[in-house]
Amino acid sequence: MPQSTDAIAYAARHRARFLQELQEFVAIPSVSTLSEHQADMRRAAEWVAAQMRSIGLENVAILPTGGHPVVYSEWLHAPSKPTVLVYGHYDVQPVDPLNEWNTPPFTPTIQGDNLYGRGASDMKGNVHETLKALEALRHTGGIPLNVKVLIEGEEEIGSQHLEAFIASHTAMLKCDLCLNADSGILGPDAPSLVAGLRGLAYFELWVYGPAQDLHSGLFGGSIHNPAQVLCELIAGMHDENGRVTLPGFYDKVRELSPQDHADYARFPIGDEQWKAMTGAPELWGEHGFSTKERTGARPTLEINGLLAGFTGEGSKTVLPAKAMAKISMRLVPYQDDKLVEKQLKAYIAAHAPPTVRWELKSTTLSAPGVLLDRESKGARAASAALRDTFGEEPLFAAEGGSVPVVTQLKQKLGVDSVLLGFGLPDDRIHGPNEKLYLPNYYRGIETFIRFFENIAG
Amino acid sequence: MPQSTDAIAYAARHRARFLQELQEFVAIPSVSTLSEHQADMRRAAEWVAAQMRSIGLENVAILPTGGHPVVYSEWLHAPSKPTVLVYGHYDVQPVDPLNEWNTPPFTPTIQGDNLYGRGASDMKGNVHETLKALEALRHTGGIPLNVKVLIEGEEEIGSQHLEAFIASHTAMLKCDLCLNADSGILGPDAPSLVAGLRGLAYFELWVYGPAQDLHSGLFGGSIHNPAQVLCELIAGMHDENGRVTLPGFYDKVRELSPQDHADYARFPIGDEQWKAMTGAPELWGEHGFSTKERTGARPTLEINGLLAGFTGEGSKTVLPAKAMAKISMRLVPYQDDKLVEKQLKAYIAAHAPPTVRWELKSTTLSAPGVLLDRESKGARAASAALRDTFGEEPLFAAEGGSVPVVTQLKQKLGVDSVLLGFGLPDDRIHGPNEKLYLPNYYRGIETFIRFFENIAG
Repeated sequence: MPQSTDAIAYAARHRARFLQELQEFVAIPSVSTLSEHQADMRRAAEWVAAQMRSIGLENVAILPTGGHPVVYSEWLHAPSKPTVLVYGHYDVQPVDPLNEWNTPPFTPTIQGDNLYGRGASDMKGNVHETLKALEALRHTGGIPLNVKVLIEGEEEIGSQHLEAFIASHTAMLKCDLCLNADSGILGPDAPSLVAGLRGLAYFELWVYGPAQDLHSGLFGGSIHNPAQVLCELIAGMHDENGRVTLPGFYDKVRELSPQDHADYARFPIGDEQWKAMTGAPELWGEHGFSTKERTGARPTLEINGLLAGFTGEGSKTVLPAKAMAKISMRLVPYQDDKLVEKQLKAYIAAHAPPTVRWELKSTTLSAPGVLLDRESKGARAASAALRDTFGEEPLFAAEGGSVPVVTQLKQKLGVDSVLLGFGLPDDRIHGPNEKLYLPNYYRGIETFIRFFENIAG
Repeated sequence: MPQSTDAIAYAARHRARFLQELQEFVAIPSVSTLSEHQADMRRAAEWVAAQMRSIGLENVAILPTGGHPVVYSEWLHAPSKPTVLVYGHYDVQPVDPLNEWNTPPFTPTIQGDNLYGRGASDMKGNVHETLKALEALRHTGGIPLNVKVLIEGEEEIGSQHLEAFIASHTAMLKCDLCLNADSGILGPDAPSLVAGLRGLAYFELWVYGPAQDLHSGLFGGSIHNPAQVLCELIAGMHDENGRVTLPGFYDKVRELSPQDHADYARFPIGDEQWKAMTGAPELWGEHGFSTKERTGARPTLEINGLLAGFTGEGSKTVLPAKAMAKISMRLVPYQDDKLVEKQLKAYIAAHAPPTVRWELKSTTLSAPGVLLDRESKGARAASAALRDTFGEEPLFAAEGGSVPVVTQLKQKLGVDSVLLGFGLPDDRIHGPNEKLYLPNYYRGIETFIRFFENIAG
């Protein structure tokens, strides 16, 4: 009888306490982007450290970075076995718009099969599942491999200081494989493994017109309105087929193989369900690709924010001096954030009229796309664990999001990551009313138990 | 010797005190749109009432409206003479962006020939000039005609309650002519009279996509981004010749006569000076018309504000649920705000894709365009007063802005308005660092003295 049988039974017996602990974790408002949550960030790090200690992990430490600290611990008592680095993050997204939440974001609330709260799905649930899997193994014969656990506090702000941290802790973090739990599956009963990750390039485009806001009655008709120019520039960034028009944007894009197309065709969520999930009147996107292909394997350009002039209640007849858009691109292999920045600049330079000045600011939030090897030891261990837990062969599908740490670990430690987590497409991560589907929280613990066992071999 | 000679000498002797009083007036932050300035609005009304009393005007009263009160007074001791209704407003625009002011907006500051402060030009300076002209006449033989003075507190929020106030005070406000001092001239030494006013129609356009903000990585490429759709709609509202594309937009527009073109050709501010004044890299607008024609006699469509998604510092990878634009049109005779609303709706209905929903909200800030009769008694009196004060024949030129009260007085009392005021195109009204050119503040008082004398005949 495999050890996992006992460990899974242990986990089943302790579900009530596990859920109680998870609610404690979700209740901590660890919003990394807002300085008023500085103390909460510390509290969340300490909560994670206390969990690690309670499981019996060793060398538990809250380690400083240039920003929010990293929580680290290890269990290294299986010299002949591989070493897995478990990666997660304890920080969460801001909660605005707060008035659209049905329950307070930091008062974890169970309704039906779901736990509502900011960070429940992204990714306190997944972090907790990995720790509970280790606890279950520890109490049923011992952790059968070497484990290092790194839980950072800056994922939601682009893992700003993690790269330097990894670079200065290469010996400590040395491992054979990273288990990155910051991930999801395609549906409640549709296990899947991440075959690739889209990269990200994020910009602010500023358009400047008159030296200051002008009266639209006195000056309207004589000055090119920067808000109008910004809209004209943005409108030109897609053609009528939903393709991005930046020069050379698709040149380096990896084409999908017949196997890729076949995998994507098995995607269990139909367009009608996707529509219902998002609430959009109709779906949209690049012609010639399915919804899952468009969100996983094709690059996109999104407007993340717009700001110009008067936006308060009522009317102000202002001709704004400037207008701003936050623009980001999701990149696929083998696109590059530096290259698309050049392409965006070239597009704007070619299309911005001489009636305005403009400026393109890049942000720290950028990462190239990543392809994961589906034949690696980690991918095979994860695949088997998913199949045994869900009774269903997992799909390999590229994810739409970006996970900078995957790139950082590859570059600094030469280590591949396997992405295994249990978020669902309708979890509303980053939005109001984020939730975690609890049946898969428990299945997640089971899957991680099996994964560790499979890696131990 | 005309009475005005004495009155003008009186005004010259009291310049220092007049300026002192004006600074008191400008120091009151009477921002009508912000509820936190409620007490300041009352204070400004009381200041105006006290001024009226000190001049000796009668029946001074602060009269309630549905919103901010109206200040009223009268001088009716010339039974055989015409009655002039003097109109002005004591409210001012909000001051944001506050950090772009070089001096505190409500600490009136004299630098060189200018007085800096919110409302100095729009229009506390002009209001004060009319009152000081009446004071000067009163102390040098008496006010030679009948005067009613109405200073309202809601001009900057569209004179929302004034229409009902006029309708319920028709007997009190009965007059032969309105002197509307909420106006300006073309240049420091270029007197001009308003030949027409552009109307205004102001809207909020909302574009709605998904039911809530989505993660741009997970959903980007499958959902039509409402911010992008909004930009596409706005981009299509002008063609490459700077003309508005709404169906039928120019159908009712009054064409310029050769006399109109000739008047506009005398506009004393060249394009280079206009550019320097606004700070725009290049001028822009509808092809085939001069700058002054485009800003005075041609209709325009402006984006007054844009808001969507994440606009704070840093990066948030959000695909926004909705996007909003404030859009206004300046209308010329014989366009109509109801008609352009239909045209805007027709345009959006024709161009909005089925991937979004949209909503067009109209605001209270709307008024049709107005033509003023340059041969009327008021226009001739004003023209002569300008010529005698500035030593220069005034131009007749249409104004870009809108003055709802002009329409209201015509509709409710059948009374024509003459617009006579001394704002300058570079006064930065509604923007940061608003200023009043003081030499013309004094000339304004002189001009009003002569105007009243001319009307008295």
